[in-house]
Amino acid sequence: MNKYFPGISRIEYRPDAGPEDTLVYRHYNPHETVHGRTMEEWLKFSVCYFNTFRYCGSDDHYGERAHQRTWDDSSRSLDNYKRRMMAAFEFFYKLNIKYYSVSDRDMAPEGDSYDETNRYLDEMVTLACDLQRQTGMRPLYYSADLFSHPRYMNGAGANPDAHVFAYACAQVKRAMDAAKRLDAENFVFFNPRDGYQSVLQRQFFRDMSHMAQLYRMAVQYKDKIGFRGQLLIQPKPADPRRHQYEADAMATMYMLRHFNLDKQYKLYIKPAFSRLMGRTYEHDVYMAAAFNMLGCVDASDSFPEFSGTSDTCAQDIRDATFVMKCVLEQGGLQGLLPGRPRAPRVR
Amino acid sequence: MNKYFPGISRIEYRPDAGPEDTLVYRHYNPHETVHGRTMEEWLKFSVCYFNTFRYCGSDDHYGERAHQRTWDDSSRSLDNYKRRMMAAFEFFYKLNIKYYSVSDRDMAPEGDSYDETNRYLDEMVTLACDLQRQTGMRPLYYSADLFSHPRYMNGAGANPDAHVFAYACAQVKRAMDAAKRLDAENFVFFNPRDGYQSVLQRQFFRDMSHMAQLYRMAVQYKDKIGFRGQLLIQPKPADPRRHQYEADAMATMYMLRHFNLDKQYKLYIKPAFSRLMGRTYEHDVYMAAAFNMLGCVDASDSFPEFSGTSDTCAQDIRDATFVMKCVLEQGGLQGLLPGRPRAPRVR
Amino acid sequence: MNKYFPGISRIEYRPDAGPEDTLVYRHYNPHETVHGRTMEEWLKFSVCYFNTFRYCGSDDHYGERAHQRTWDDSSRSLDNYKRRMMAAFEFFYKLNIKYYSVSDRDMAPEGDSYDETNRYLDEMVTLACDLQRQTGMRPLYYSADLFSHPRYMNGAGANPDAHVFAYACAQVKRAMDAAKRLDAENFVFFNPRDGYQSVLQRQFFRDMSHMAQLYRMAVQYKDKIGFRGQLLIQPKPADPRRHQYEADAMATMYMLRHFNLDKQYKLYIKPAFSRLMGRTYEHDVYMAAAFNMLGCVDASDSFPEFSGTSDTCAQDIRDATFVMKCVLEQGGLQGLLPGRPRAPRVR
Amino acid sequence: MNKYFPGISRIEYRPDAGPEDTLVYRHYNPHETVHGRTMEEWLKFSVCYFNTFRYCGSDDHYGERAHQRTWDDSSRSLDNYKRRMMAAFEFFYKLNIKYYSVSDRDMAPEGDSYDETNRYLDEMVTLACDLQRQTGMRPLYYSADLFSHPRYMNGAGANPDAHVFAYACAQVKRAMDAAKRLDAENFVFFNPRDGYQSVLQRQFFRDMSHMAQLYRMAVQYKDKIGFRGQLLIQPKPADPRRHQYEADAMATMYMLRHFNLDKQYKLYIKPAFSRLMGRTYEHDVYMAAAFNMLGCVDASDSFPEFSGTSDTCAQDIRDATFVMKCVLEQGGLQGLLPGRPRAPRVR
Repeated sequence: MNKYFPGISRIEYRPDAGPEDTLVYRHYNPHETVHGRTMEEWLKFSVCYFNTFRYCGSDDHYGERAHQRTWDDSSRSLDNYKRRMMAAFEFFYKLNIKYYSVSDRDMAPEGDSYDETNRYLDEMVTLACDLQRQTGMRPLYYSADLFSHPRYMNGAGANPDAHVFAYACAQVKRAMDAAKRLDAENFVFFNPRDGYQSVLQRQFFRDMSHMAQLYRMAVQYKDKIGFRGQLLIQPKPADPRRHQYEADAMATMYMLRHFNLDKQYKLYIKPAFSRLMGRTYEHDVYMAAAFNMLGCVDASDSFPEFSGTSDTCAQDIRDATFVMKCVLEQGGLQGLLPGRPRAPRVR
Repeated sequence: MNKYFPGISRIEYRPDAGPEDTLVYRHYNPHETVHGRTMEEWLKFSVCYFNTFRYCGSDDHYGERAHQRTWDDSSRSLDNYKRRMMAAFEFFYKLNIKYYSVSDRDMAPEGDSYDETNRYLDEMVTLACDLQRQTGMRPLYYSADLFSHPRYMNGAGANPDAHVFAYACAQVKRAMDAAKRLDAENFVFFNPRDGYQSVLQRQFFRDMSHMAQLYRMAVQYKDKIGFRGQLLIQPKPADPRRHQYEADAMATMYMLRHFNLDKQYKLYIKPAFSRLMGRTYEHDVYMAAAFNMLGCVDASDSFPEFSGTSDTCAQDIRDATFVMKCVLEQGGLQGLLPGRPRAPRVR
Repeated sequence: MNKYFPGISRIEYRPDAGPEDTLVYRHYNPHETVHGRTMEEWLKFSVCYFNTFRYCGSDDHYGERAHQRTWDDSSRSLDNYKRRMMAAFEFFYKLNIKYYSVSDRDMAPEGDSYDETNRYLDEMVTLACDLQRQTGMRPLYYSADLFSHPRYMNGAGANPDAHVFAYACAQVKRAMDAAKRLDAENFVFFNPRDGYQSVLQRQFFRDMSHMAQLYRMAVQYKDKIGFRGQLLIQPKPADPRRHQYEADAMATMYMLRHFNLDKQYKLYIKPAFSRLMGRTYEHDVYMAAAFNMLGCVDASDSFPEFSGTSDTCAQDIRDATFVMKCVLEQGGLQGLLPGRPRAPRVR
Repeated sequence: MNKYFPGISRIEYRPDAGPEDTLVYRHYNPHETVHGRTMEEWLKFSVCYFNTFRYCGSDDHYGERAHQRTWDDSSRSLDNYKRRMMAAFEFFYKLNIKYYSVSDRDMAPEGDSYDETNRYLDEMVTLACDLQRQTGMRPLYYSADLFSHPRYMNGAGANPDAHVFAYACAQVKRAMDAAKRLDAENFVFFNPRDGYQSVLQRQFFRDMSHMAQLYRMAVQYKDKIGFRGQLLIQPKPADPRRHQYEADAMATMYMLRHFNLDKQYKLYIKPAFSRLMGRTYEHDVYMAAAFNMLGCVDASDSFPEFSGTSDTCAQDIRDATFVMKCVLEQGGLQGLLPGRPRAPRVR
């Protein structure tokens, strides 16, 4: 665990650190008790595998890959994915936290066939299990990436093509197997492509009922294999779609209720997405909590202007305080409060 | 019926009208059948009493009253309200349509006491009944104005002050009595002040359950007096509040469902408010229709920029077409498609 | 000076104040030196006469006057305006600051004729001079209100009606006379109605050249009467107009340069208006400073969502710090940094 | 000219085409005279090489390349670039128009050194000259791509690193050589990365004066080599930067004027970017025209919601009409009105 970041040792809590000591925790002491719990219990920090190790600083504005990483040659070879994973776990270990967050496609590339894809994933999950054992890490959440591949360009659960729907279901099944092997605390659904560009191309009710069917089968499979993590859904209003069905907490809760799934799912709120709808940062956190549906919070932020997702730290300490107040009042979260700052292309 | 607009006669359908004939219907022929119904059945136009006769061209930007009306001296005297009502009915009659939309406070001013306020309202409703008889008009909807008076500055149903809540309930009761006397087709709840400025000042769940309690009592009173109109709620995301609980179709439907009121209410969608949330004009119309909750549409529009409510006509014919397509597909509305252009202060 | 706020004495700097002592300055010590100047020199606080004494808590959403003030009966009588002015100066005095900001129509109502209007203004300015002498106050800026009266509903300097343009010029002349009598440090132009709703109704270049002509005459009259205050213009992107010509710092500076007025005017930046264009709070402050055109800052803020002008205090301490950094770097302002929180209708 | 789109012949004007004839011009007749000019003279359509042939349907939301093109294997080999260019010219030819728009990096890849990059460009320009001769096409504009490569991630002209500034200048020089060889009608500067993320990292005036220096040298080099095209700048408010210096027409014109460059440059307005600032589609077209600085219009559009650049066709026929009215009134453009719809990833 000292190959990719050789000059750096494990980050420790040092409240007496001087101004030159930058690689220390000045305030976060995992074992300090606050309001009856340790900070480690309140704040289950996790590193986002995607933002930190899969994303390489490209952007939509014709910005080519900007991040240069010694271990990552951009290829889709298993070797490249393995080096990336070993660098990642060294990074997690040195950061001295307990959780990371990851999807199937962060871990392993697609193969030429469904079977090959699954073999790749199995091999990488085996490596991850080994690295988890060495470092004591585990996933705060696991997820199926149902949006990067071109097959999902018009959605997964709500895709009008039955083949794509079936493929998504099969992928979720395999991802849940992986989540169980890795002992993930939660399983998250992100659906940034399930919605509409034009009302002419969609049948809203049918789309939503298809999504619900995928969710229902996920519950059944979870019970079948005995996976014990919490199922979560992350609402997001738009971007890349003009509208996504799970636009915010209230819309997602209505869908879950209408299709009788509200007992099996909770919400994973990203306050930056509340801003996308012209609301306060803390809005959806409070809305979900009001109806006892708040499972998780992604404590990143976006600039309050145009861009969809900046993935910065919370911009205003007041906003962050409002969120933490809600978490305290409901007695903690399902598990987690991951931070996921992304190293941006633009400075 | 020829006192306030003396040089103007009733507007008629004249498809052969020349370019100088401006006071005619060129396209709207009430008796023409389209897709199996008359235009009059599809399009239940109604004049908005508030926008047309109570609003006098002031604005929030220190803009004083700009509209000069011979019949309206700005006073709160019953005489002024009577002249205004007679001018309004002459206008309705000459416009040659069948519906108008109105609230209790459009019709009658507040008095010095609750009793006096009710006496004023009764007297004005009696006059309105008489004018309805002369003109054949009736209200497309009736409403209780639970937002203009300072007592409602922090909301009505969700107001944390129990006295205000009680006053709102009493006012709804009297407004529903009036709706029954006037034979209104619908009874609408607008709640533009029920929401929050800061999460510190509100308890979301309690606020929403109070609103539900008011709605529940409205259903009970409706049954008691035998009023047969449809109950409607108009969602609106914000403005003047930073957030209003009934922010959009999905949020309102979730509340109704959670509090077991979804059988008694339908939604009155104003597409301009979908724009306020960065959505397409037609969005909430389709969302409500998807779950069979679309009751009414307010076919006005707002400029797609900053301002809350411009109350112009639909800006883009494509948007209007999308809305009409939805209405056709669900086989018409609960009754109505009022237009409510407001004569603005600024040109 | 103890009639309208009888139980309250002058607010003092008391750094040792306990948590119950709310009417004290804890941090602001006018005589303390920071970076080579006293706080009083860096921060020329002024009370906004309009927001604090003329505005009474109405809003555009059919919200009637909500503020009840013992001295203000809402009438346009001179007596009411005098009581209001005496209450205002008592308030200024007890706040223990040196500046207030005011327009002609804040001080005196319109009369039935131009001459009567001027007589009213003269009488009120005489009273203000007297109250200034008693309290040691003076205007940080004086302004002509060229937007409240219906005549200005389509603008003042850019109004296509030559009579309105002429009236605006005459009003500016009288306002500048008042500014001189009151020894105002600055004279500000606000033009929230000079712009367009539709490009069909306007000729952009002609409109802007008319505005420039008004500005040019203002310079000439200033020189003629020997008024020594700085001329300022406040940019604002929109609201109530869809677009205002002086939309931001760069647009206003281009106009001033094109019409050869850039030596005589500086900008009065309200960072809340930068937010209206989807920019950072500090944006226009830095843009104006970059070209040596920053004269004044209005340190209020707006909620970052829909509403035009919330007039709250700065929401994020980081934003306020960026602005103050710019002011420090350019060595202070023309004079001023007024705060203008407005007591809102909605809580 | 019949290799890549074999089943398709040249598109012709056929006003009598039936509903099944989709590959025809129904309205655009290049030789028809309207308001004293042929349609071909009013509307200089050009295909955007980047949007149509370099962009392959990826997006910022982890969306991998979605477009499958037989001639494009995604590699950076010269062979791939040559096949792409031949397919492009066949497409242009069959579309039966006269112009295309292109940048240096659309035509040729970067090499391992500056010299190699230039050799690649020269070779590809030679091929383009040959294909222009065969098809009668020429560039409506040529441009230097100063934003895709990671070296430009923090800007080109305003980059605080002098080496990047120098590289940008050298690249512009070579691009202008190419523009001359290809006889481009215009030379466009796009600067989507010259601005700021945080005011702490930038010195506004210095940044802008550096950009002006690059523009000044471009004028000098243009004169030196005798390139006769018009120099254009495209304003854009933000995205990917939080703010770009050339944010809109007024800001860009102020910069040009301040640095004495307003005689040598004109503006290339993309109305979709006016929407990004909450303005009407036509706004910057009218602003530039008001001061005689309108050179070119990019008649694409964006959805009026979140996303930066949708590159759709104009959404509202009314908006497009306003723009065309302005062009008619000023007697045509510098040359051009390109449309640039982009085949999107999401449907």
